[in-house]
Amino acid sequence: MATTIALLPNQDPTLVDAVERAGGELAELTAASGLVWTAGPDDFPDPLPDNVEWVQLFSAGIEEFFTAGVVDANPRVQFTSATGTFAPTVAEHALALLLAGVRAIPEHLFADTWRQQEFFPKVGTLRGSTVAIIGAGGIGRALIPMLAPLGARVVAVNRSGRPVPGAIETLPVTRLDEVWSRTDHVVIAAPATPATKHLLGAAELAQLKPTSWVINVARGSLVDTDAVVEALEANQIGGVGLDVTDPEPLPDGHPLWTLPNAIVTPHDSNPPQRRVAAFADRVAENVARFAAGEDLIAKVDPVAGY
Amino acid sequence: MATTIALLPNQDPTLVDAVERAGGELAELTAASGLVWTAGPDDFPDPLPDNVEWVQLFSAGIEEFFTAGVVDANPRVQFTSATGTFAPTVAEHALALLLAGVRAIPEHLFADTWRQQEFFPKVGTLRGSTVAIIGAGGIGRALIPMLAPLGARVVAVNRSGRPVPGAIETLPVTRLDEVWSRTDHVVIAAPATPATKHLLGAAELAQLKPTSWVINVARGSLVDTDAVVEALEANQIGGVGLDVTDPEPLPDGHPLWTLPNAIVTPHDSNPPQRRVAAFADRVAENVARFAAGEDLIAKVDPVAGY
Repeated sequence: MATTIALLPNQDPTLVDAVERAGGELAELTAASGLVWTAGPDDFPDPLPDNVEWVQLFSAGIEEFFTAGVVDANPRVQFTSATGTFAPTVAEHALALLLAGVRAIPEHLFADTWRQQEFFPKVGTLRGSTVAIIGAGGIGRALIPMLAPLGARVVAVNRSGRPVPGAIETLPVTRLDEVWSRTDHVVIAAPATPATKHLLGAAELAQLKPTSWVINVARGSLVDTDAVVEALEANQIGGVGLDVTDPEPLPDGHPLWTLPNAIVTPHDSNPPQRRVAAFADRVAENVARFAAGEDLIAKVDPVAGY
Repeated sequence: MATTIALLPNQDPTLVDAVERAGGELAELTAASGLVWTAGPDDFPDPLPDNVEWVQLFSAGIEEFFTAGVVDANPRVQFTSATGTFAPTVAEHALALLLAGVRAIPEHLFADTWRQQEFFPKVGTLRGSTVAIIGAGGIGRALIPMLAPLGARVVAVNRSGRPVPGAIETLPVTRLDEVWSRTDHVVIAAPATPATKHLLGAAELAQLKPTSWVINVARGSLVDTDAVVEALEANQIGGVGLDVTDPEPLPDGHPLWTLPNAIVTPHDSNPPQRRVAAFADRVAENVARFAAGEDLIAKVDPVAGY
């Protein structure tokens, strides 16, 4: 018999398809063993009928479900979050920005004549280069295997310094100041906290190379925007690829809009259509695991609170 | 005792370093067991002294060494070519162009205001997409493992249809017409022959999607340039990334210089500094193998002639 899954409150066709291709069968809540819940905690069907054993939530951070008491009210039910589903698209965006920088795509785009000899020395490569990934959470960990076949060496920086798989070296954040002079490029993927504000400023930029690209796909506040503008105007670094800015949105007339080696994308590395698609993949995977009685991905721990 | 290697006629520091980091020791030709020859056949030290057992050549196509009789004149000597060393940098360039297209980097670069809602639907992904690689030689085979961690499926097209590792399907070139309507993006990496001229023209472009990007890192003649310009002007495809053009160099004033979704790089995907660096890696690898008595990479077959 097929595993019965309720899909509420929205029945996005992509999610319907995900349930069905995993071998699940859509059912009313009163007849379902699993629930895929696509909204916040407000309208959550609480308490759940006894037949529901598993709830898949459509968010990575699920604090609000704890705050609303939804998890505690259903102690028999296994909740799973969407943690980790959004990382690959942001990592892909970071790689696109980094490769565009290293291969001088912006300057090529602004060219209107065949200047091969002039471009030759400007075409770099990630092969043999060192890329520092500041913050080795989901995005950083998704980026590392994308960089590996390009021959880049990754130095990861995280809170603990516990080795990140695929990195040639992992430094604790207390040793962050050692990174700048030793790396070719920087990808910022750390959470925004008071401690990470302006993590990259004038002093750090001064230690990078004239060919270094800085990519920020985390939060604008981690980078000192004025210092970046000064570094770009002085050709101190190769360029920046920013999916996030400070201030955000970046105001009209800001120098980053026109500096030739600044690529600004308006916080669109994880566009809505991609979020549903990525969540659908997780739904399909967890429905298949649930049907097979296997361990689910991203189980919520009611005691730890995440 | 260290393995002795002669490096002639040019002693590029990068190559000196490659020999030495592989554990080799530079020596005069009369005292060397291996020779790294950095030039063409004209000044080749022929016949070689008896002490030379191995010659590493600095070119992928070595027809001219056969024509000049160098290989035949030294039947006891194992020759190796540079075949395969240039593919990774061209594959990296192809990936940079493809990702730039899929992530709408050109349109982002030309923007001067924060248009997040407008950009959201334009930000694509390689994840779950199909990429057709036309010509699965060294470049195509180097590109496949770069696409794998991005979640793209590769359909390869080669002469024989013999399965290419990592491709979900390999079609023989006789079935090329089946590819266009089934793929999201196209990377052209096939040799230029009378049979491949204008392999991509108006009829093929018409079968692609409005989001499809076409990347050409092979030779300009494989693509019908006028048909591409028409397709771009009609927004029939997403865009093109061309490292090679027809005519080449692309003349001033050509529409490809200004069409917003055309990225032109002036045949610089394999710049001179990168060729020496890549060759140095091969030299280091083969010196280490030679010293250890292991099988060398890219051995020349004197009978087959390549």
